Amino acid sequence: MRPYVFVNIASSLDGKISDETRKQVRISCKEDLRRVDELRASADAIMVGIGTILSDNPKLNVKSEELRKKRILEGKEENPIKVVVDSRCRIPENAEVFNSKVILAVSKLADKEKVERINKKAEVVAFGEEKVDLKALLEYLYKKGVRKLMVEGGGTLISSLLREDLVDEMFIYYAPIIIGGEKSPTICDGNSFNPALRMKIVSVERFGEGVLLRITRSDSNMSIQNKKP
Amino acid sequence: MRPYVFVNIASSLDGKISDETRKQVRISCKEDLRRVDELRASADAIMVGIGTILSDNPKLNVKSEELRKKRILEGKEENPIKVVVDSRCRIPENAEVFNSKVILAVSKLADKEKVERINKKAEVVAFGEEKVDLKALLEYLYKKGVRKLMVEGGGTLISSLLREDLVDEMFIYYAPIIIGGEKSPTICDGNSFNPALRMKIVSVERFGEGVLLRITRSDSNMSIQNKKP
Repeated sequence: MRPYVFVNIASSLDGKISDETRKQVRISCKEDLRRVDELRASADAIMVGIGTILSDNPKLNVKSEELRKKRILEGKEENPIKVVVDSRCRIPENAEVFNSKVILAVSKLADKEKVERINKKAEVVAFGEEKVDLKALLEYLYKKGVRKLMVEGGGTLISSLLREDLVDEMFIYYAPIIIGGEKSPTICDGNSFNPALRMKIVSVERFGEGVLLRITRSDSNMSIQNKKP
Repeated sequence: MRPYVFVNIASSLDGKISDETRKQVRISCKEDLRRVDELRASADAIMVGIGTILSDNPKLNVKSEELRKKRILEGKEENPIKVVVDSRCRIPENAEVFNSKVILAVSKLADKEKVERINKKAEVVAFGEEKVDLKALLEYLYKKGVRKLMVEGGGTLISSLLREDLVDEMFIYYAPIIIGGEKSPTICDGNSFNPALRMKIVSVERFGEGVLLRITRSDSNMSIQNKKP
């Protein structure tokens, strides 16, 4: 058993989530930031890859005081658990994300001493030999009570989750900008899929300044996968 | 004076126009192929970068016999002029594109002997020292009677045209697939823009299996540009 996993990501029209410097680029509009905050407040946990921590150093908190209060009234913590996928335990000890409960998922490659230091600030769990075993991590999170997991990127983590068929739903907000750059990070990095993953576009709407797509995996992938020997 | 320039490109939801092997990936659905054919038939010339020729070896012809006949009735050639931007004259002598009139734009870096050989199959024009001077090329095309130019990629050419503010309109068809890959070519490659280019989303519609966006440059870029010293 694993949690329901949804990805939320803001992109330029050309699929970039940052520019080639990997510094944070303002992509979402005001309406989209509010929507993301509501999604965060609805989740039991928020997952990001270490690349996102290293380049953006996000807090990953629910920003709206009203939404935080609502969570407390519902008997939840103010903020969802933050889950960082960090195979080699590269996270800085002063990362902003440590402002509330963090589960840091590492692999067996992670430096033992660093893990011990981080273990004072967060729960460190090891799954997988060289890379975090995402399926095992999701099962662990489910056992910890996480039923709804929001993934906020980056493109490498999204790629890994899609490759293992661990994504139930994706929201992509396309801002009316072009970032460009052959080296800029995109919605889905890693290695390309062959064949490409078939998705189902559940809805398309103009949203704020941009366009919001809700997508799921297409059932036709299953048949492709089943055809493989 | 330059032609009206519109870009048409088919992309995965994550902004990729091919996978990391750069081999042609079927992205457009049947409805989109028909739409692209109509756009081609409406253009005086079709422009691509050399990367697209080397990886896809496209004919760039109008596929529909009906649309070709219509062009002839209108006193035009069966197919629009094909314009290939190829700074170093890397085009293979047997490229499929040579099946009808081609203008090959090179820079002064191009090998003289190769240029002479290609000159037997196509009109070779040189603009720019190391890279094709796109503005000069567009002015030349205008003088040759080209009023409506369709650009079909790839991402490097699109990036260069956007950087020089030479694009009037873009059609992006997003297919319901995810290609992934940090090295896969995207809608807009080259170097990233800083700041990102502001675009205006003119229309969004579900089209065939995917989503079709029509976009133009936002007027707000002008003010950004004017603010620069």
